[in-house]
Amino acid sequence: MSGRPHDRRLLLGPGPSNVHPRVLRAMAQPLYGHLDPAFLTILDEVQSGLRELFGSVNPLTLPLSATGSAGMEACLCNLLEPGDEIVVGVAGVFGARMSEVAERIGARVTRVESEPGTILSEDEMIDAIRRVRPRAVAFVHAETSTGVCQPVPNLAHAAHEVGALVVLDCVTSLAGLPLELDRWGIDAAYSGTQKCLSCPPGLSPVSFSERAVERAASRKAKVQSWYLDINLLAGYFGGERVYHHTAPISAIFGLAEGLRIVAEEGMQDRTQRHFAAAAALVEGLREFGMEPLVAPEHRLPMLTAVRLPKMLRGAEEAKLRHRLLDHWGIEVGAGLGTLAGEIWRIGLMGENARLTNVESLLCALRRELG
Amino acid sequence: MSGRPHDRRLLLGPGPSNVHPRVLRAMAQPLYGHLDPAFLTILDEVQSGLRELFGSVNPLTLPLSATGSAGMEACLCNLLEPGDEIVVGVAGVFGARMSEVAERIGARVTRVESEPGTILSEDEMIDAIRRVRPRAVAFVHAETSTGVCQPVPNLAHAAHEVGALVVLDCVTSLAGLPLELDRWGIDAAYSGTQKCLSCPPGLSPVSFSERAVERAASRKAKVQSWYLDINLLAGYFGGERVYHHTAPISAIFGLAEGLRIVAEEGMQDRTQRHFAAAAALVEGLREFGMEPLVAPEHRLPMLTAVRLPKMLRGAEEAKLRHRLLDHWGIEVGAGLGTLAGEIWRIGLMGENARLTNVESLLCALRRELG
Repeated sequence: MSGRPHDRRLLLGPGPSNVHPRVLRAMAQPLYGHLDPAFLTILDEVQSGLRELFGSVNPLTLPLSATGSAGMEACLCNLLEPGDEIVVGVAGVFGARMSEVAERIGARVTRVESEPGTILSEDEMIDAIRRVRPRAVAFVHAETSTGVCQPVPNLAHAAHEVGALVVLDCVTSLAGLPLELDRWGIDAAYSGTQKCLSCPPGLSPVSFSERAVERAASRKAKVQSWYLDINLLAGYFGGERVYHHTAPISAIFGLAEGLRIVAEEGMQDRTQRHFAAAAALVEGLREFGMEPLVAPEHRLPMLTAVRLPKMLRGAEEAKLRHRLLDHWGIEVGAGLGTLAGEIWRIGLMGENARLTNVESLLCALRRELG
Repeated sequence: MSGRPHDRRLLLGPGPSNVHPRVLRAMAQPLYGHLDPAFLTILDEVQSGLRELFGSVNPLTLPLSATGSAGMEACLCNLLEPGDEIVVGVAGVFGARMSEVAERIGARVTRVESEPGTILSEDEMIDAIRRVRPRAVAFVHAETSTGVCQPVPNLAHAAHEVGALVVLDCVTSLAGLPLELDRWGIDAAYSGTQKCLSCPPGLSPVSFSERAVERAASRKAKVQSWYLDINLLAGYFGGERVYHHTAPISAIFGLAEGLRIVAEEGMQDRTQRHFAAAAALVEGLREFGMEPLVAPEHRLPMLTAVRLPKMLRGAEEAKLRHRLLDHWGIEVGAGLGTLAGEIWRIGLMGENARLTNVESLLCALRRELG
C-alpha cells in the first residue's frame, strides 16, 4: 500500500474511538450507486438498526451525511423559526453549542446552566420551561465535555406539558447506553458514528418524531438549510428514494456493519461492558491521584472525566498526553473550555470498552509517573 | 467478510464513479484522532493537493465534512447576508439549486436561465450583473444535469467590475479538467469527491479567496450555519488546528490517496484521457441513435448527455437502465427535471475515463438492442 505509514493508535479520547476491523473492511468494498436497489437495501437495514438503538419507531430515522455537529444543527433548524423561543440546558460545551446554533437560527434562547461536572437542575429547567413556554427544549443526554449523564424523562415530560418539542443530544450515548426516544417523548435526536458505534466520524444518525415532521412541514419560513431540510431529506430517506444529495456510500457500508456488530452483542451486554470498563478505570486512576469529576450516580460509563492532581495541571498534563501518544500510541482527551488543563477525558467507547485497554493505559501511566 | 455480498458495478452515471482500489485500501486503515499530529500531516497534504487541483493558493482550501451540496451551501451562506443581491446562472438543476439555496439564506436572487443543454449567454449574464450590481455572482462550471461546460473568465471579470464576489460550482470538473480559480478570479468554489477524484461521496473540497474570507469576517449577521461558518472552520483547517467538529478521518485518508493518484498521473494526461474516452463514447453511441445533447464546443468530457431515440423515451429508457444494472452491472444516469425520460447521462469520470469502459457499455447495449 502506498502513502504514509499508519501506526496503530489506542484511541481513548472523547472520540473518535477505534473502528472495528469489520467496519474498516466494509468501507473498503467497491461502491454501489446511491440509487442502486442493492444499496437501498443496505440503507433500509441501517435505518432499521438505528431505530432499534434510538428506541424509536420514527420512520424519519436516518444517517445524516455530515458529522454530529451537523446533526445538532439539523434538529434545531428544522424545528425552530426566527423568533421562536427555546430553553437550552447548558451543562458543558455541547449544551453551549446548542445554544449558539439556536441563536444563529434566530431563536430566542433561554439558557439554564449547571456547574461543570454536574447535571442540570431539574427544578431550574422545569421552572424555565413553565415560565417561557417555549417552542422547543434542548439538552444533552451524554455531555462529552464533562462526562455527565442527564436524566431525561422528567425534563421531556415538563416540555410536553407546555406543548414544546424536545431535542436531545445523544452523540456519545448511542450504542453505549440504552436509549428510549419514544418512551421518553423525544422529538428530535442526533448522534455521531465515531463514539460507541466504533465507526469513523462522518455521519450523524438522527431521528425525528411525527410531531417534529409535522412541525417542519407546517413552518411559515422554509428551513434555512437546504442540505438539512427534513422535508427534502424525507424524499430520499423515506419510501420514495428520490435524489436529494449523493449519500456517502462507503461510510454507510461501514455503519451497516457497525450496527450488525452491536446487534450481535446486544445492548444489554454492551452496556454492561461499558460500565465494567469504566469502573475499572476509575479505580485504577486513583493510584495517580486522578479523581472523577462527576458524582457516581451521574457518571457516563463511556466517557470518564478525571481531575488531575496539582503536579499534572497546566503545561504538565499536555506534556504527559503527548508522551502517551508519541511513545505508547495511546490518545486521551484534554479538558475543554474552563476545564482545559484541569481534567482529562478518557473514553472507553464501543469496541474500546474493555479491561485490557484500561490495563494498557494504567501500565503506560505507571511507567511514565512511577 | 460478513455482511451482504457486494457485486461489482461499473458506475457510468453522473457520480459516484468507481473508487480506485488504492483509495478503498487507504480508507480501511486504522484511525488517528482528529488532533493527532500524524493525522494533521495528512490533512496538510490534502489541503495542499486540493490547492493544486483548484489552481489556487487560497490558504482556506479544505475538505468540508459533508457532500457537494453542503459545499454549495457553505459558499453561499458565508458570503451572503439576508437582503443581499445575487445573480445566479441557471443552466440546469444545479444552477437552480444554487438559486434555491441563496433564497433560503434570504438573498434577493436574479436568475439568468439558459435552454437545457446550452451554456448561459454571456451577454445576458453580464447585462444582469451590470444592472443588479450584486454582492455575488454564482454559476456552474460543469453542469451535471446536462453536461455543459460554462466558460468562466468573462463572467468572473464582469462580476469583479461591479465589486461582486464569484461563486463557482466545480463538483464535476475538479480533477477532470484544469481549474484556475486564482487566474479566473473565483472567490468561492466547491466540489465533490465522488466524481473525477474517484473517491467515495462524503466530502466537499472547497476554496475561499482572501476577499471571501474578509467578507465572511466583516458580516453584520453571523453565518446562519455554525457547521459551515468559515470563520470557525478556519480555526481547525487553518494553522491553529483547534477543535471545531470531528473531521471524517477515514474519508480524508481516502482523499489523500486519491489526490496522490491524480498527482502521479498529472492533470495534462488526465484531462486528455477524459477527452479521449468521451470522444469514443459519443462516436459509439451513434450506432444506437443516441445523439449528444450539447454542442461539441461546450461538451464536458467527463459527463455526456445523450438524447435517446424515440423508441427508448419514457418508460423504455428506465427498463433498459435497469436491465443494464441488473444484468450487466453497469449504471448509467437518467435525465433530471424536464429532461427525465428524454436523455441519459453517461459519466466517464476519473478512473472510469477509459476506452475499455466505453467498450463494455457499447457491447452491453449492442446485446440488449441488437
